[in-house]
Amino acid sequence: MSATRQERPPRYSPGTGPEGWHNPAGKSIREIIYGMMDGIVSTLGFLMALLGALVERNIILIAVFSGMLAGGISMGFGGYLATKSQVEFFNNEIQREEREIKELPHIERREIEAIYKAKGFKDEELRLVVDRITSDEEVWLDVMMREELGLVKESFDEPKRVGMALAISYMVGSFAPIIPFLIDLGETSLYLSFLFGIITLAIVGWYRARITGKGVLSVIEVVLVGVIAATLGYIIGIAIQTVI
Amino acid sequence: MSATRQERPPRYSPGTGPEGWHNPAGKSIREIIYGMMDGIVSTLGFLMALLGALVERNIILIAVFSGMLAGGISMGFGGYLATKSQVEFFNNEIQREEREIKELPHIERREIEAIYKAKGFKDEELRLVVDRITSDEEVWLDVMMREELGLVKESFDEPKRVGMALAISYMVGSFAPIIPFLIDLGETSLYLSFLFGIITLAIVGWYRARITGKGVLSVIEVVLVGVIAATLGYIIGIAIQTVI
Repeated sequence: MSATRQERPPRYSPGTGPEGWHNPAGKSIREIIYGMMDGIVSTLGFLMALLGALVERNIILIAVFSGMLAGGISMGFGGYLATKSQVEFFNNEIQREEREIKELPHIERREIEAIYKAKGFKDEELRLVVDRITSDEEVWLDVMMREELGLVKESFDEPKRVGMALAISYMVGSFAPIIPFLIDLGETSLYLSFLFGIITLAIVGWYRARITGKGVLSVIEVVLVGVIAATLGYIIGIAIQTVI
Repeated sequence: MSATRQERPPRYSPGTGPEGWHNPAGKSIREIIYGMMDGIVSTLGFLMALLGALVERNIILIAVFSGMLAGGISMGFGGYLATKSQVEFFNNEIQREEREIKELPHIERREIEAIYKAKGFKDEELRLVVDRITSDEEVWLDVMMREELGLVKESFDEPKRVGMALAISYMVGSFAPIIPFLIDLGETSLYLSFLFGIITLAIVGWYRARITGKGVLSVIEVVLVGVIAATLGYIIGIAIQTVI
C-alpha cells in the first residue's frame, strides 16, 4: 500500500503498446464504408432518375458535383460535431464516476470488488487486489471506466479524423459514378456510370472483407445493399411525384 | 490457482451492473446529432438555392420529401453496414488476440504483467494477479481486450440501432425546415423555413448541451456550424454552375 503516484511506471496505453492493433487500417473502417456507401447511393439514385429523360451533360455534372461537395461538407462538419459531442458525453460520465469515487468511496470500492470477484479472485487475493487498485485514485477511476462503463479513453474517436474521413469518403464515393460523364459519350455515359457505381461498391466490399477477415459474401452484401438503397430512393422519388 | 470456469460468478457486465451509465439518453448522441445536422444542413442548402428563384411549392415539396426519404434510407443502410463492419473488424482483432494467447502464452503473459505493473502492482502481488488472470483464458482475453486494444465487447455499437437512429434523425432534421411549406403561405414560407431550420439546429444544440453537461456555447456551435455548412454548400453550387 506504499505505492505513490510518483513511483508508478507510465500508464500502459493500448495502441502504443508493444503490439496494439493488428490491423491499424481498420481504424476508420466505419467512416470509410459509411461515407463511400452514402456517396455512391445518392449518386446512383440521382442517375436512375435520369433514365429515359434527356438531360444535358452540363446539368448532370453541375448537380452531381454540387451534391458531392455540399454533401461532403455537411458530412464532415456533422461527423465532427457528432463525435465531439460523444466524446464530451463520455468525459461527462467519467467525471461523474470520479466524483462518486471521492464522495462514495465505500460503494465504488464494493464495485471494484464485484469486478475482480467476477475475474475469479476471492478471499485474501481479492482484498489485496482491491486494496492496491483503490490506493491510487487514477488507477481506480481507470478500472471503473473500463469495466463498468466500457469506456477506454485512449480509444475515443478523434472528431477531426472522423469528420475528414467521412467527408473524403463521401466525395470519393460520389465522384466514382460520374467519371464516365467527364468525357462526352452521349447516352453510353449513363450506363457506364451505373457500372462504375457498382464496381465502386464492390471495391468498398472488398476493403471491408479484407479488414474484417470475412469472405466474398461480405462484398456481395455491400453491392446489394447499395443497389437496393439507391433503387428505393429512386422509387420513392417517383411515388412522391405522383402523389403531390 | 484452483478456480475453474464453473466456480466463477457471472461476468460483471457494464450497463447491467448496479450503476452503469448515468445518462442512458446519451447512448445515441452521435447518431442523433449527426443525422439531424446532415438533414437540416442539406435542406437549408437546397432552400438557399431557391432564394430569388420562383419555384412552385409542389416542386419544392417533391424535392425535399424525396431527399428526406432517399437520404434517410441511404443513411440507415450505410450506417447499418458500416457499424456491422466495424464490429466484425473488432471481433477479428479479438480472435487474433485469442489465437496469440493460445500460441504465444509467454508473450501475452508478459503483457498482462506490464498492464498490472502500470496499475501499481509489483513483486509477489504482481505475480499473484498475473497468475490468477492467466489461469482463466476467458478472463485473460477480456483483460487483453480492454487494456491493450481498448475494446469492450459489451459496448460495441448495435448496427440496427445505429442505422435506425441515423435514418430517423436525418428524416426529422430534413422535415423540420419544410413544415412552413405544408401550408400555402407564398414567399413567406421560404423565410419561415430558414427560421425553422435554425430553431431545429438550436434544439439539437440544446440536446447536446444537456447530455454533455456543457453550456450555451455548445448550442451556439451547433447553430453556427450548421448555418456555415449550408451556406458553403450553397456557394459551391453557385460556383460550379458558373464554371461548368
